[in-house]
Amino acid sequence: MAGPVASDAVTDAVQQSDELDVVGIGNALVDVLTHEADAFVEANDLERGAMTLIDMDRAESLYAAMGQGIEASGGSAANTIAGIAGFGGRAAYIGRVRDDQLGTVFAHDLRSIGVTFRCAPATDGPPTGRCLIVVTPDAQRTMSTYLGASELLGADDVDGDLIAAAQVTYLEGYLFDRPEAQEAYWKASRMAHEAGRRVGLTLSDTFCVERHKQAWRLLVTDQVDVLFANESEALALYDVSTLDDVVAHVRADVEIAAITRGARGSLVVHGDELIEIAARPVPSVVDTTGAGDLYAAGFLFGLTNGRALDACGRLGSMAASAVLGHTGARPSTSLAQAARALAL
Amino acid sequence: MAGPVASDAVTDAVQQSDELDVVGIGNALVDVLTHEADAFVEANDLERGAMTLIDMDRAESLYAAMGQGIEASGGSAANTIAGIAGFGGRAAYIGRVRDDQLGTVFAHDLRSIGVTFRCAPATDGPPTGRCLIVVTPDAQRTMSTYLGASELLGADDVDGDLIAAAQVTYLEGYLFDRPEAQEAYWKASRMAHEAGRRVGLTLSDTFCVERHKQAWRLLVTDQVDVLFANESEALALYDVSTLDDVVAHVRADVEIAAITRGARGSLVVHGDELIEIAARPVPSVVDTTGAGDLYAAGFLFGLTNGRALDACGRLGSMAASAVLGHTGARPSTSLAQAARALAL
Repeated sequence: MAGPVASDAVTDAVQQSDELDVVGIGNALVDVLTHEADAFVEANDLERGAMTLIDMDRAESLYAAMGQGIEASGGSAANTIAGIAGFGGRAAYIGRVRDDQLGTVFAHDLRSIGVTFRCAPATDGPPTGRCLIVVTPDAQRTMSTYLGASELLGADDVDGDLIAAAQVTYLEGYLFDRPEAQEAYWKASRMAHEAGRRVGLTLSDTFCVERHKQAWRLLVTDQVDVLFANESEALALYDVSTLDDVVAHVRADVEIAAITRGARGSLVVHGDELIEIAARPVPSVVDTTGAGDLYAAGFLFGLTNGRALDACGRLGSMAASAVLGHTGARPSTSLAQAARALAL
Repeated sequence: MAGPVASDAVTDAVQQSDELDVVGIGNALVDVLTHEADAFVEANDLERGAMTLIDMDRAESLYAAMGQGIEASGGSAANTIAGIAGFGGRAAYIGRVRDDQLGTVFAHDLRSIGVTFRCAPATDGPPTGRCLIVVTPDAQRTMSTYLGASELLGADDVDGDLIAAAQVTYLEGYLFDRPEAQEAYWKASRMAHEAGRRVGLTLSDTFCVERHKQAWRLLVTDQVDVLFANESEALALYDVSTLDDVVAHVRADVEIAAITRGARGSLVVHGDELIEIAARPVPSVVDTTGAGDLYAAGFLFGLTNGRALDACGRLGSMAASAVLGHTGARPSTSLAQAARALAL
């Protein structure tokens, strides 16, 4: 992390900015979601529950195999940013689309909810990226991503004004598969810290962590202040086998860590503090797509708006629950209202 | 209607075809759905609950005003056809899209569920049409349609082989706003009857009925065998004020009429028979988009697969209930399974 921050500074930092709560950087994607039987995952050789990068040919053949779907703006960090805007937070996003119909949809869905999204769409090159998401009856989502134009993101896209204006620069682990993006992350992190800001990161995917473990550890140790990971990702990052080991590691590495555990809730680690947060019950879990992204949204909204860490965790659980009951990664109901109803 | 059909011929007719149950003709559209407060409808001068045709400029300004949405293949008759395929029925669709991303989505969503969709996408001209749907907290949907490429449909697109192969040629009232489409409907109806088949029609929208009342009455009296309408549309068509008057009129005009009444269920009229069908309760109605289309799907699947008229009505209610609980016009769950579970 950038340097130790005293415990009581957690909420103090939030009053400093009159500009942005969070700027997110990630793969700008439109999701194509279908519900399929379990057999579909095996028949099409998909890695259940994971995110796999695919090329255009594979995207076309997989799409042809999928049943009717819905399209919805996605991208992990973009979902988080949309969630923060849904709480009434001030947020911006950096990511690349093309000047095509899906790119128009992606940009609209951010701007229409008040998110600052300045990146001009590419006028040539690959089309807007898409994530083909197969939701199985257990509500698990299996993702195959054709990056398309989102792959164009590099260090030049890191908008220093937005980074300097945002209390937290939030980075999505999925992007970490590409060297240009890793370079962009280092640049953004250094800019954020030079401006006296925090850096947040989500590990995103166990396979992605395994592919770049050393690069991840370096970034986490050196630059990350607020770390999001689910249990498997955290275990993979540190090559350990128990949650206690994870806690010891993140305590040493980052200011704040939020370890999500699905239906078992989450664990927030902050110095010597260890806060257990219950998952918020959902009448019927339809699709887990975006649940982790929205947890980060609630948490970061709370953190950048003066809430105590346990309230941040509860805002995260609430936001995650708001997308579990429907198909798609972004809530269709008001997070701000839901937070008020829970006195959060 | 084409001519009187004896009461007991209703189910007899269904065993004749070994090819298609239903071919639908309509506006090929992709829906863009958002949830908005009631104030949005007034502020943007929308006709609540209706379908209004808009041009590209208006489509762009309205889209800019709408919050984040989801995209899903739509089009009234296409939704019905998708529903019939969802029951395991054999169905085809005639409608026009462009060779763009939304056109690809529309074609995929039909073909991937086994619907025959042969119309080649236009390679120039307006983009694929879209329907901007604002869903208010009462779950009512208000639709603004930019027809785009769907407007290109005319008599030349009427595929005689599909019409001859289908037990029912199903026509969507929304298309009736355009003279070219009215011509196509007359052509398709005559072809269907020459092949000894039935013609189905939904009135679709009260405003549309009011705009073309005389043309509607002529088509209904002369060509329609199976009529779908909600109560308001039926009252408007006949300029009457009671459901009893509607029943008397449809009895004279068509072989079978299904009058839908929202939460009050539906009324099936067939000669002297009058069958009341209860609505199927839904735990929480989220979005009424597509409910009428899916009612027609269940009904037509039943009718073309040997079910008695009361079972047709119950299949309709069940299919409608399958889309009321989520955002979007097409079911994400298996209608065939649901029908089996209800022994329909």
